[in-house]
Amino acid sequence: MKNIGIVGLGLIGGSYGLALRQTGKYRIFGYDADPEHQSLALELGLADDILSEPVWSSLDGVILAVPVDVLPSLARQVLDKTNDNCWVADTGSIKSVLARKLADHPGRDRFVLSHPIAGTEYSGPSAALPDLFKGKINIITDPEDSRPDLLEQVTEIHRDLAMEVHFMPSDEHDRHIAYVSHLSHISAFMLGKTVLETEPSEKNIFLMAGSGFASTVRLAKSSPETWTPIFTENKDAILPVLKKYRENLDVFIRLLENEDKKTIFELLKDINRIEGIIDDIHQKHGKR
Amino acid sequence: MKNIGIVGLGLIGGSYGLALRQTGKYRIFGYDADPEHQSLALELGLADDILSEPVWSSLDGVILAVPVDVLPSLARQVLDKTNDNCWVADTGSIKSVLARKLADHPGRDRFVLSHPIAGTEYSGPSAALPDLFKGKINIITDPEDSRPDLLEQVTEIHRDLAMEVHFMPSDEHDRHIAYVSHLSHISAFMLGKTVLETEPSEKNIFLMAGSGFASTVRLAKSSPETWTPIFTENKDAILPVLKKYRENLDVFIRLLENEDKKTIFELLKDINRIEGIIDDIHQKHGKR
Repeated sequence: MKNIGIVGLGLIGGSYGLALRQTGKYRIFGYDADPEHQSLALELGLADDILSEPVWSSLDGVILAVPVDVLPSLARQVLDKTNDNCWVADTGSIKSVLARKLADHPGRDRFVLSHPIAGTEYSGPSAALPDLFKGKINIITDPEDSRPDLLEQVTEIHRDLAMEVHFMPSDEHDRHIAYVSHLSHISAFMLGKTVLETEPSEKNIFLMAGSGFASTVRLAKSSPETWTPIFTENKDAILPVLKKYRENLDVFIRLLENEDKKTIFELLKDINRIEGIIDDIHQKHGKR
Repeated sequence: MKNIGIVGLGLIGGSYGLALRQTGKYRIFGYDADPEHQSLALELGLADDILSEPVWSSLDGVILAVPVDVLPSLARQVLDKTNDNCWVADTGSIKSVLARKLADHPGRDRFVLSHPIAGTEYSGPSAALPDLFKGKINIITDPEDSRPDLLEQVTEIHRDLAMEVHFMPSDEHDRHIAYVSHLSHISAFMLGKTVLETEPSEKNIFLMAGSGFASTVRLAKSSPETWTPIFTENKDAILPVLKKYRENLDVFIRLLENEDKKTIFELLKDINRIEGIIDDIHQKHGKR
């Protein structure tokens, strides 16, 4: 049985703990900077035991599941206090900043940049789910910078969770994730803001809203602790698509002002091409 | 058993047909301008029979489920050929234009302006669902302009479908629906457009996209035939909220350019208030 440490016992770290414990192959040591989260996580069975100082040197691997702005310094500390055959993997949704900040660390080849594409709009230990990762995709970036034997162990862990593992460069990952995930979150947050500003009475929103509104705005429930650093640290990739999105809105506003039905119709018809892609995603992730 | 005509046998009209037939209280006569849709609708059991010319005068009620731009002229024709005790109700998601265009018709008091808040991103007869309306809200506008006995019959039909019926003025309806439904659809369409323009390879979108992307963009699959006229006919209510949405995006872009983490964090935290509203909507409509 391998000893795995998990730092950060919220939605992502907690779900790793639950799922890895179920395989029967791993003993999980958990740590959370918030003592209440840590106790709750143990109660909920997200870890077998607390990750206390004496345990660190005997770990076979560590998963870091903390906000991306605290990742780089935490990653360096954890590399410093783990043994020479212990891998350290993160779970963050941006990769280039971390890759750059770890480049000069002597233990860089024990680090594996990893991003499980899975989540919900909820956060904290009680949001953890045993099957959050099942059937989903895990992306490992810059695999050539990690030691092959340790890379293999991290890949195996994700296959144990029934995930597909894919590899790509960090900058490519950050560019893609900006428009498939970060843009969706920003549009949902701004939609939520617009509706809250327009209609102060929650009863009226509730009365008139259908499932379409709820699904479009759902991500506006996401955690500011998680998403503020993701947005700011990936701003170079996000800003171009966010501006393109704003331009598309500008075009639509002009078409609507001119009541240009023909062009609006053709535009919407063309966008309907997205249907096939969404159906594929639903098959993979289920409908939420 | 009452005889009900349904004009337009797509998602909405077809779902009315299925659900009303199941009550055992109504015999459904269906018509669709597209002969293929009409045959398919009969095959699928969305209607008992075809709504042919001789049937019109014996109907007790007619439901119009067609795009909002063809509604006004159709509504006048249907009022002309139905009997003096036959109600006519629409299902459109905007009301003021129709109310204005029917105001001078001698049969106006047989018309009931009605909007079932239910739907999916699919269209056509095969998209019809027997429980689409169950537990949802139906809004009737300007009820004082309809004959009380006929208004009661239309209300009863919706209660037979297990819907809650609410009443409000047409202009208030159109103003509210602009930001809870129409804005969501526009943001989803523009998000779909932005992603399709940014990433021509569908494989890459699929690989990186989580359920969040799919849920935010889902409405971009909606029918251009239905939504183009909704957008253009409700533009006076839509444009102000769409411009407010664009302003909110502008503010966010500036905050991101300045890496103003503190303000972004506070902004997202405040928007999290939407959580309670979304949870209430999910309870009513289910998660999709």
